Amino acid sequence: MAPTKVKIVEVGPRDGLQNEKEFVATETKIELVNRLSQAGLQNVESASFVSPKWVPQMADGAAVMAGIARRPGTIYSVLTPNMRGFEGALEAKADEVVIFGAASEAFSQKNINCSIAESIARFEPVAKAAKEAGVRLRGSISCSLGCPYQGEVPVASVVDVVERMKALGCDEIDIADTIGVGTAKRTREVVAAVSKVFPRERLSGHFHDTYGQAVANIYAALQEGIEIYHASVAGLGGCPYAKGATGNVATEDVVYLMNGLGIETGIDLDQLIEIGDFISRAIGKPSASRAGRALLAKKRDGVAPCV
Amino acid sequence: MAPTKVKIVEVGPRDGLQNEKEFVATETKIELVNRLSQAGLQNVESASFVSPKWVPQMADGAAVMAGIARRPGTIYSVLTPNMRGFEGALEAKADEVVIFGAASEAFSQKNINCSIAESIARFEPVAKAAKEAGVRLRGSISCSLGCPYQGEVPVASVVDVVERMKALGCDEIDIADTIGVGTAKRTREVVAAVSKVFPRERLSGHFHDTYGQAVANIYAALQEGIEIYHASVAGLGGCPYAKGATGNVATEDVVYLMNGLGIETGIDLDQLIEIGDFISRAIGKPSASRAGRALLAKKRDGVAPCV
Repeated sequence: MAPTKVKIVEVGPRDGLQNEKEFVATETKIELVNRLSQAGLQNVESASFVSPKWVPQMADGAAVMAGIARRPGTIYSVLTPNMRGFEGALEAKADEVVIFGAASEAFSQKNINCSIAESIARFEPVAKAAKEAGVRLRGSISCSLGCPYQGEVPVASVVDVVERMKALGCDEIDIADTIGVGTAKRTREVVAAVSKVFPRERLSGHFHDTYGQAVANIYAALQEGIEIYHASVAGLGGCPYAKGATGNVATEDVVYLMNGLGIETGIDLDQLIEIGDFISRAIGKPSASRAGRALLAKKRDGVAPCV
Repeated sequence: MAPTKVKIVEVGPRDGLQNEKEFVATETKIELVNRLSQAGLQNVESASFVSPKWVPQMADGAAVMAGIARRPGTIYSVLTPNMRGFEGALEAKADEVVIFGAASEAFSQKNINCSIAESIARFEPVAKAAKEAGVRLRGSISCSLGCPYQGEVPVASVVDVVERMKALGCDEIDIADTIGVGTAKRTREVVAAVSKVFPRERLSGHFHDTYGQAVANIYAALQEGIEIYHASVAGLGGCPYAKGATGNVATEDVVYLMNGLGIETGIDLDQLIEIGDFISRAIGKPSASRAGRALLAKKRDGVAPCV
């Protein structure tokens, strides 16, 4: 049932960098996006058209999108929280716009003071405009495997949000384990349930490695036939609130897994580990990718790690 | 086919600490072993009866074994490379002695200048003496999923070593991915093959997280019915040869996985994360356990990491 090839959506330039305190130079962001597309990533989440007051790191979204060298066939996505963001995205010629909502009622109330249903309804104009403009529409569902406030998130809540996003016309929907608490069993339960209401081949798994479970969760989701996975080169996107806590699963670790499983990604792992090294140096942080660190050590020092 | 309960073999005090350059005080080692058994670990690899010239960190094995408070039912294992080691282990009242060999011919030649077959035959006296003394005998097979020198390790080589260790009378045999290169598919192939020549319930999986695959490999091995897993609290056992490379899979991450799968371990995860914190502070290194760090941050600071 596991697919023979998968699409990896690289979220490092947006989800990964957005919480970096030090502003990352626009040219560094552009180089990151360009190198990722050259390495074979078919979809790169490149910017966020959100108010710079909310996310100062993403203030240069228009400049990033204007500066990149578009690789034919690559989808460059941007986050669009509202119509103003959508207009920016359209002007920037984004291939895909991303809207979002939580599967947790407590999270929705606490973060944006409204119900899940209301929060998704607010995206109606964006969704409508995207459809009219012929831009791909992606919906991302946070807290799909657990919530920091309410803990357990019922599978039915995730299914409900998927149905709402489907009704808005989403081409692709992300099942996101925002806080990384999910394990393999829950992953399978959730993706199996949502596969019944939305085409499996347009569902994606977005896992965080906070509890060390992300690669196992991807292996579990593969067994449910999921064909799209999000990942962040060098594991960009460490948690801003807890020192040492890890964030997005590293793209290198995911590609290493897929290579071992004989599942095609179209991604050059060697180029990818160089990109991980490049961006880690640029932001002055060690790479959070285990495969990236091990392969780089082997390449640079000629040592086989950990014998 | 996945088991409803598993045994976790804690290898931190031996495999984890053995490469620490700074000598870890004997009382710290004793406290580590004691706290691990109190937390519910049923098997603790506690010391190595190897020449202190080879492994100075393990020079105090007899003192560690003499100092621990034995918990009824807990198996305290020690590594015994030869008859001299075995005699020390017997005197120290070890419950289980561990012998070892590689599944890779290149590794065996390069490291101990003899063939796999010869290296295992050398353990015959130890195996015989263990059987006569009524001490449990465990065999550990390194490089079962890959070798730093020859790369690929044929499944047949692993099966061959399992058969040799079975012939020596091993009660339990470890399939060890010493350099952490294995992925889920290979894991399943190897454990499925060796399960045909040795009772599945006495096979264990020993995975390293060097390439970020260990938890996924455990999830894969569970699906092949493997019921015993090695792990190291705080991920003790970082690689001595490559900076930043990770070693043994962290016990906290494995218990977190099992809890999520509803598989019984008998281990108190809260105690375990405190032990991970204790030993990480004692050796002055950050914990390599993702679950350990995340749960500790949540407990100490009241924050839910990575929202």
